[in-house]
This record gives sequence, structure tokens and C-alpha cells, in this order.
Amino acid sequence: METYYELNVESVVKYVKEKMDFFSEDAVFECTEIGDGNLNLVFRILDVKNDKSIIVKQALPYVRAAGEDWPLDINRGEIETRILKIEYDLTEGLVPEVFFFDPEMFCMVMEDLRGYIIMRYGLLEAEQYPKFADQISDFLVKTLLLTSDLVMDKKDKKESVKSFINPELCEITEDLVYTEPFNVGARNNMEEFLVDFHYEEIVQDKELSLEVAKLKVDFMTNAQSLLHGDLHTGSIFVNEDSTKVIDPEFAFYGPMAYDIGALIANLIMNYISTQAIIEDDHVRSTHSDYLNKMIIDTVNLFKSKSLALWDEVVTDEMAKKEGFKEWFIDDVLVNAAGVAGCEMIRRTVGFAHVKDIDSIPDDAKREKAKKDNLTLAKVLIKNRSQITTGENYINMMNEWL
Amino acid sequence: METYYELNVESVVKYVKEKMDFFSEDAVFECTEIGDGNLNLVFRILDVKNDKSIIVKQALPYVRAAGEDWPLDINRGEIETRILKIEYDLTEGLVPEVFFFDPEMFCMVMEDLRGYIIMRYGLLEAEQYPKFADQISDFLVKTLLLTSDLVMDKKDKKESVKSFINPELCEITEDLVYTEPFNVGARNNMEEFLVDFHYEEIVQDKELSLEVAKLKVDFMTNAQSLLHGDLHTGSIFVNEDSTKVIDPEFAFYGPMAYDIGALIANLIMNYISTQAIIEDDHVRSTHSDYLNKMIIDTVNLFKSKSLALWDEVVTDEMAKKEGFKEWFIDDVLVNAAGVAGCEMIRRTVGFAHVKDIDSIPDDAKREKAKKDNLTLAKVLIKNRSQITTGENYINMMNEWL
Repeated sequence: METYYELNVESVVKYVKEKMDFFSEDAVFECTEIGDGNLNLVFRILDVKNDKSIIVKQALPYVRAAGEDWPLDINRGEIETRILKIEYDLTEGLVPEVFFFDPEMFCMVMEDLRGYIIMRYGLLEAEQYPKFADQISDFLVKTLLLTSDLVMDKKDKKESVKSFINPELCEITEDLVYTEPFNVGARNNMEEFLVDFHYEEIVQDKELSLEVAKLKVDFMTNAQSLLHGDLHTGSIFVNEDSTKVIDPEFAFYGPMAYDIGALIANLIMNYISTQAIIEDDHVRSTHSDYLNKMIIDTVNLFKSKSLALWDEVVTDEMAKKEGFKEWFIDDVLVNAAGVAGCEMIRRTVGFAHVKDIDSIPDDAKREKAKKDNLTLAKVLIKNRSQITTGENYINMMNEWL
Repeated sequence: METYYELNVESVVKYVKEKMDFFSEDAVFECTEIGDGNLNLVFRILDVKNDKSIIVKQALPYVRAAGEDWPLDINRGEIETRILKIEYDLTEGLVPEVFFFDPEMFCMVMEDLRGYIIMRYGLLEAEQYPKFADQISDFLVKTLLLTSDLVMDKKDKKESVKSFINPELCEITEDLVYTEPFNVGARNNMEEFLVDFHYEEIVQDKELSLEVAKLKVDFMTNAQSLLHGDLHTGSIFVNEDSTKVIDPEFAFYGPMAYDIGALIANLIMNYISTQAIIEDDHVRSTHSDYLNKMIIDTVNLFKSKSLALWDEVVTDEMAKKEGFKEWFIDDVLVNAAGVAGCEMIRRTVGFAHVKDIDSIPDDAKREKAKKDNLTLAKVLIKNRSQITTGENYINMMNEWL
């Protein structure tokens, strides 16, 4: 840590000029800090004269949103760099290109995704991304299936598990997603109107807690695939043509269901939010149709592409046995529905919320949206064994929202 | 590897005298090579004058039973030493004491278990070990529950997972237990009378292969507890009063069910064997009653002790939720029944057999025993969801043997 210092908009320009030969001599720099995550400083350095830009992401040794009282493994950037390179190769560029990682400054320099928008904000503007479901299902199938025992050489896979052991970041998920929202206190954070509802409907629901405990154990022990680990709509850049997944610093070997479920939950929460916010009937109904189709396509394309790719890439002799691939993918999807429920609950009553639902301006609508969100989440967790297609989600949403 | 050489009965005495201060000056040595496993040289060095002895176990860089054509990670002794020390502490001495491990010679020097017999051979003589079920259930509960996420600090547990990644030894199990016996060829090894039976009843049984594939995936991905990894009756020393588990070189973080199932399978195979071999009606019936009771007690004590210890030791908040411990232990036992079936099949048609069944002298009885063993194994795998008590095993055995 001797040579480490926190970068700022001035020092980062100097740093990059020293470290790499990216900008030309006559560059005129504009630098902004654009990080809105919890864990890092993120700088965009733009050469306005030559219209070239780059991103520098530096890890802080504590959780940014909580301050220096919550220390965090600063070395996570090393894991993030490694997984980005793996994902870049596996998905043919559905993540940004990484130029280098500096282990002394704990910072990563990478491609600037110009012309993209964070998906969460785009969806809140009722934007549409016609290629998203196809591209994100590609991302899921390739990053999850191709890093599993089913495909990889088993010794290489075990070395990969070892090299992606990520205790501090996993602990955040174990606590914030799988534990605190189902108990009282800790870092839970909810509006006043939710306090009793949360206690009665979530904390006191013994069946719910039992099912969440099963999902938590699966998260902690099931070293199935190399996960992104934090695949919400704030970790995805999109535009009309393209999708880029960012911020995989929570990466570790865990259950495929975790990435899939986190993504679906965030699409559902955008649905609940936009249906409450959008006032124009036509726009609201169009966005509703669009999100329904996106959820259906994402789930069903994950399933159909996994089953199709299986025969080409799977090397494990037993995984080729009749009926296994269908059983396996359905089992993943069942648990993904459970994960989706946990993510929806924790984003409503836990430490870290999502803008979608918190930003509903009307108090009564926001209260209804949050309670509906919790109610649907419970249904997803308890009835997850019946959720193995995209349409299953839409049916549940139609019934409970 | 520069200083490594294979020890023999002469050089090992010299080696131990140089390395440790265990024997006195006037010692008169007798040294014998007693290894009958597949992977190591094992020497007993006895000072006949002072009646003191010690065991030296040296790893070979290949699978002993197959010769130098099957190379194997010679560093496994390091893992074995570490897990023996952990198990020694957790179980208050249900494994031998290790004096030291030499990372250059890949050998471990440890307590000689004098006055003990390998359980497999004792059981084949219809010996009884009245404390075994109580002691082995202690071993299982303590080594499995106390090394899991349910109890350990989660960061420590993940570091432990990392330090016990054991790719080469796991691959042996993945191939020999979970793959080859359910296919034709490879290293399978069976008597002529089994060839057609194996093909029709095992290889062609699609439901069986599907269920085994699920169990194999669980073995490969479920980093639940620090396993012994090879807990058959040849890895257990016993006498009237005491039990000592040896040879945990297959140790890794895997499903609790694997250790429990392997043990039960070997007790069942001893039952099948001794019922065919013992001619005296009274002795046979006594041994049958004894083994039935041992199986019932081992399973039921594992269950009752786990449930009782749970409230004292479990730290995970969600694992304390109502109903979780019962669900968890039953889930472990269900999968243990599946593992037991796989172990019984692989010991009959796979590469490595057990003396119990192979040594039945009468051809017709041996054929019946082997076929009964395969038939019961299939039932255990396919109906494992109904096997959560010791009595469930006895009922299955009574129905199918």
C-alpha cells in the first residue's frame, strides 16, 4: 500500500499519461468523476481535441457509500480485471476491453463506453433496447455454461474456483441479500410505511425464511460457474445495437441462478416502477408490453440457447446422459426465481435500494409499488419450483401486481 | 523433487533416526512395509527392545496399483497432514496423531495404531465393535458440521476451501465412482458373469444414469464441508474400545453426503458378503443383527447428534430459522443414500473392488452377491428421496437382498 494514493480529476490525467501511450501529444483533457457505485472512484478522461477517451476505475479500501468505517478488500480490482478478460473472450466483447490493471494503485484502465447508457436509467425513460434479450442471454449462457464443470477441464475449473475465492465481496451479498432483509435491524433501510408490513409479511413468515435459508446455502456452497455476481441493470450499459456488462468485482464461483435471478428481479422492479410513474396510457402500455417481452425472451433464450449449445460444448460424460440438460437448466431457473425474490426484497427493505422504485414521486403509488414488490417477491421464492419459463414470470406478475 | 527418493525398509529407519528424537539409543529395529492401498508406501518401524513404534507414510508420484503410467500429484501428503491435524482437534483424537510432514520426501510420520485392526478385515471375521457407531457418528458430525459455512466464520471457510482444492484426487473419484461404472469400457473391471448384467441393468438404465449425473454434479460443485473423501472400512482402524480414521488424502470441500454414503455402502457390502460366507447359522444371524444395528445407529446417531449440536454451534442466522436444520440434515441423508449406491456399484464393476464381496469363495454365491449388490444399489439411488433414517436402509435391504 506504500505507493497507493486516491486519484482525483487532476492526478488521474497525469497518471494515465505516464502509464500508457493512449493519448496524443496535443491532447486537451477533460476529466470527470462519474462513479455512482458504492465501492470505487471512476474517472472518464476525454481528449476533447482528438475525441478519444478512456475510463480509470480505482478501488477504495472501504465501502464508498458507508465511508471509511466499512473497510473492504482493495485487491478486488485484480479479480475484476481477470474476469473481464475471461468474459471478453467468452462473449466476443459483451464487456468492455481492459487495457491494464495496476496492482499498486489498485486501478484498472479500460475502454470508455461512449454512446451507451446505464440500462437502469434508460429503462426509467421508457427506452427500448431491441437487441438486449438476445445479447444478455448470450452473455449468460456463455459466461455461465462455459466456466462450469460441465464444459471445462475439471482440474482447470478447480484452479479457477481457487483463484476466484472472493470472501469479502461474497460476505456483502450473504449479509445484504440473504440475511438482513429477513430479520429486524442491522443495516436494513425502509420507509416508515413498510416497517410493520416488513415485520409481518417478511420477518414473521417462517416458510419464507426457510426457503431463503436454502437459497443462501446454495449461494455459499454451490461452486457451479464463474458468476458476474452483481448483474443488476446498473451494471449494464446499453444502446440500440449493443450491450456491455460492467463491474464484475463480486465475481466468484457460485450458482448460475444468482446472475440470472438478479437480472430478472431488476427488470421486474423496473416494470413495477414504470407502471406507477408513466402517466401517458399509451407509453405505459407500450413499455409494459416491451418489458414483458424482454423478461420472457431473456429467460426463454437463456434456456433454449443453453440446451442448444450443450451438445456442442459439454465434455462431462454424465452430463450428456439423456434428460440431464433439461433437468439441469430447469433447476437453475427454479433457483433463479428464488434469487429474484431475494433481490426484490433486499432492494426494498435492505441497505442498498434501486432508483426505480425509490424514485416514484407519488407517496401512495410508491407505497403500493413497494408492497406489491415484496408480495410478488414472496410468491417467487415460495413457488419457485413452478417457475422455469419466461411466461411463468409474466403470469405471476399479472396475478400479484 | 531433487532430494526425493523412494524409501525402503532399510533407508526409512535411517531417515527417521535422523529426523526425529523418538527412538532411544539402544533401539533394535524391525521394519515392515504394510501398505495395501493404491497410492503410498507405508512403513511400520518397531523398536522391539523398548516396544515403541511409529508409522511412516510416503506418497509415490504415481498410482501404486496401476504403476508409473498413472502419475499422481505427489503433494497430496501435505493436504493429508493438514486435514489430520484439523480432524484430530475437532474429534478429540478419532484420527492418529501426526508428528511431522516432510515436504521434500513427501512423507508423513505419525502415531502407530497398535492394537487396532482395519475394520474391513475385522468385520469379515464377524468381529464386533460396540462403540463404533457412537464414535464414527461423532467423527462425521464434528468433521462435517464444524467445517461448514453453518458454523465457521465465512471468510475462514472460504480460505479453507481454497487451501483444500484437490484436483487430482477429486478427478479419481469423479471418474471411478461417478462415471466409468455407468458406461462401458475405461478401467471397469468385472467378472464375466456380470458383463451382460452390468450392460442391461446399469449402463442401459436411463433413469439411473440421470440420477447419478445429478449426484456427480453435487460432488463436483457442492463445497459444503471438509470431507475425508475416502471413508470406506479400509480407512478405519478399530478395536473394542476405539475408532481411528486414517488416510484422508482425498480431502476437499464437498458434500457431507459423500463421506456418510461411502461408509454406509461399505457396511452394506460387508453385510452382503458375510451373509454369503458365514456357514454357521448362529454366527451368521448374530453378525446380521449386529450389522443391521450398526447401520441403523450410525445413520440415526449422525442425525440426532447433528440436530442436537446444531443449536450450540451454528452461527449462520438463516440456518437457525425454524425447520432449516431438519431439512438440511434430511437432504444430506437423501444424497448419502445416492452416494452409497454409487459406491456399491463402482466396487462391483469398476476399477477398485472390495475384498468383502470379491472374496466370497463359492462362485454361485459370489455371483448372487454381486448382482444383489448392484440391484440394491440401484434402488438406493433411485429411491434416495425416501431414505432419511437407518431403518429405511434396513427395510430396503430386507426387501431387495
